[in-house]
Amino acid sequence: MANEAVQPLAISMGEPGGIGPDLILQLFAQRAALGLPPFVVYGHIGFLRARAARLGLDFDIVSTTPAEGRQRFADALPVVDIEGLVPDHPGHATPVSAVAVIASITRAVEDTLHGACRGLVTAPIHKGALYAAGFQHPGHTEFLAELCARGGTPRLPVMMLAHENLRVVPATIHVPLKEVPSLLTTDLILSTARTLAHDLRTRFGIAEPRIGVAGLNPHAGEAGTIGLEELDIIAPAVATLAHEGLAVEGPFPADTLFYLPHWRKYDAVIAMYHDQALIPIKTVAFEEAVNVTLGLPIVRTSPDHGTAFDLAGTGTASNASFLAAIRLADTMTGPKA
Amino acid sequence: MANEAVQPLAISMGEPGGIGPDLILQLFAQRAALGLPPFVVYGHIGFLRARAARLGLDFDIVSTTPAEGRQRFADALPVVDIEGLVPDHPGHATPVSAVAVIASITRAVEDTLHGACRGLVTAPIHKGALYAAGFQHPGHTEFLAELCARGGTPRLPVMMLAHENLRVVPATIHVPLKEVPSLLTTDLILSTARTLAHDLRTRFGIAEPRIGVAGLNPHAGEAGTIGLEELDIIAPAVATLAHEGLAVEGPFPADTLFYLPHWRKYDAVIAMYHDQALIPIKTVAFEEAVNVTLGLPIVRTSPDHGTAFDLAGTGTASNASFLAAIRLADTMTGPKA
Repeated sequence: MANEAVQPLAISMGEPGGIGPDLILQLFAQRAALGLPPFVVYGHIGFLRARAARLGLDFDIVSTTPAEGRQRFADALPVVDIEGLVPDHPGHATPVSAVAVIASITRAVEDTLHGACRGLVTAPIHKGALYAAGFQHPGHTEFLAELCARGGTPRLPVMMLAHENLRVVPATIHVPLKEVPSLLTTDLILSTARTLAHDLRTRFGIAEPRIGVAGLNPHAGEAGTIGLEELDIIAPAVATLAHEGLAVEGPFPADTLFYLPHWRKYDAVIAMYHDQALIPIKTVAFEEAVNVTLGLPIVRTSPDHGTAFDLAGTGTASNASFLAAIRLADTMTGPKA
Repeated sequence: MANEAVQPLAISMGEPGGIGPDLILQLFAQRAALGLPPFVVYGHIGFLRARAARLGLDFDIVSTTPAEGRQRFADALPVVDIEGLVPDHPGHATPVSAVAVIASITRAVEDTLHGACRGLVTAPIHKGALYAAGFQHPGHTEFLAELCARGGTPRLPVMMLAHENLRVVPATIHVPLKEVPSLLTTDLILSTARTLAHDLRTRFGIAEPRIGVAGLNPHAGEAGTIGLEELDIIAPAVATLAHEGLAVEGPFPADTLFYLPHWRKYDAVIAMYHDQALIPIKTVAFEEAVNVTLGLPIVRTSPDHGTAFDLAGTGTASNASFLAAIRLADTMTGPKA
């Protein structure tokens, strides 16, 4: 499972008041039984020790570098220590920790870009707590894209939700539903599909990716009688991509495309909007879906849940998605078949 | 399973060129093994005999009345014979049969309204074939609503998709996605929920139905930052319904609402549009989802698939949804717990 003799994964600690730190600590405690690949946590070491004690977890937590952390993983949790004020107040957003939260992400991205770490798993953040500290990005992913651009123009990151071999990519994401039809363009579908195909080849080792494309309207518009976007926008994109040699099919009615025997025919499916992608993956993956960011120069995965303040510090939150995010980052950065 | 000493179910034969007749005939052949409740087919007896012979099915097919059909079900397929020209041409829409197709639905509805049959299961039709014969309804369900209104103003029928105890009702149905936000009103959600609650009580025997309501936007609008329909339209409807004493909750983010442990907390969920309802039910129900029409004076179910011309006459189409439609019509018209 874990790759030998390579760099560790980086994990950013995320919002200290949420469940991210809990899950990191609990998964580390089970690293041998779970066969986890070595990872290094980017976070505040005093806070992590306090949270571990709160959860009744008893292991060493050591300040280290990524290279050294790789070696120490068997006997202690390696932490790249981020200074700052990080109180252990589970259950609440902690704006005072915003500087440290942002710094932990920034350092983790830098070390991954430089090759000291081979991929990044991010714990959930709470945007509201960060805005007070001057964070100006619409979300975690956009922030990562900007860090990865190193001052240049960020590439458009593409969000993928993955569960085993079921993968789905929404072409539009966190926008009101009524804006989706006007945001949907042939160019957007083309760029999304090209990024997806590129990363399926390079990150997932799929030489000839097969991609299915959903329609926007009921029954994929039923030949234009229930909407025209399939004819005017989506089908032309599919035709262009097929002409480029990509194994792409669609647009299909979304309800039959996500019927599992159909979905499984594709290495990934492109959905037109957030819920069209998220409903089927969450319905089949339960708590195990992983959020993967495509189009970045680094591998980045994250659990498909938020900070869950009500469960923070209790030790009762499910670690299934976080575990799957670590395993997928491991696979994506490992040798390809 | 089957209810004793009551009227049979009515089944309309649907498009003769499609798989509907195949499935009816095949299910009848297995009636004993499957424990099916007695049913009477409304269709052209000569056509049904020809299709049965084509499928290699060997049983008597007799012209009968509903009452007599109930008695003969054990030894012959009872048919309320509809005259007309109905050739056995599987694989093609048959416009010449349109008059008979419409008459079979009309007679089946009349007999169910009068109590000669206790519920109606409809086989799929092909609208295109019917329009040539003057059919002027947007769909099968709207036609049934008009027949049930007996010349009065039809009630707004409400579509439910059901699989075991998972049920979902789209508030808007066969409209382009871009029209959904403007069609969604508090009144529409209120009338949909009231019809749903009424029928859950009377048809499903659920005394205190629990209803969940989905949002329209990603994350149900995230408190207004990703769309306002939740605050302006959906939440006021939920508040009104709760004030009326209904156990209703929402609006919830659709992707987490259809996460199965959440979905199962409700007797039914109201979705805002077609794919939001159809994606999750088809993802979990595979081929077994049933389409139920609520708000009619009769019970009406139908399989959740179309005419599938490519499979007609081959005997290879799955009967899972049609079988589930018969069983659900049986349950809905049977004694309540």
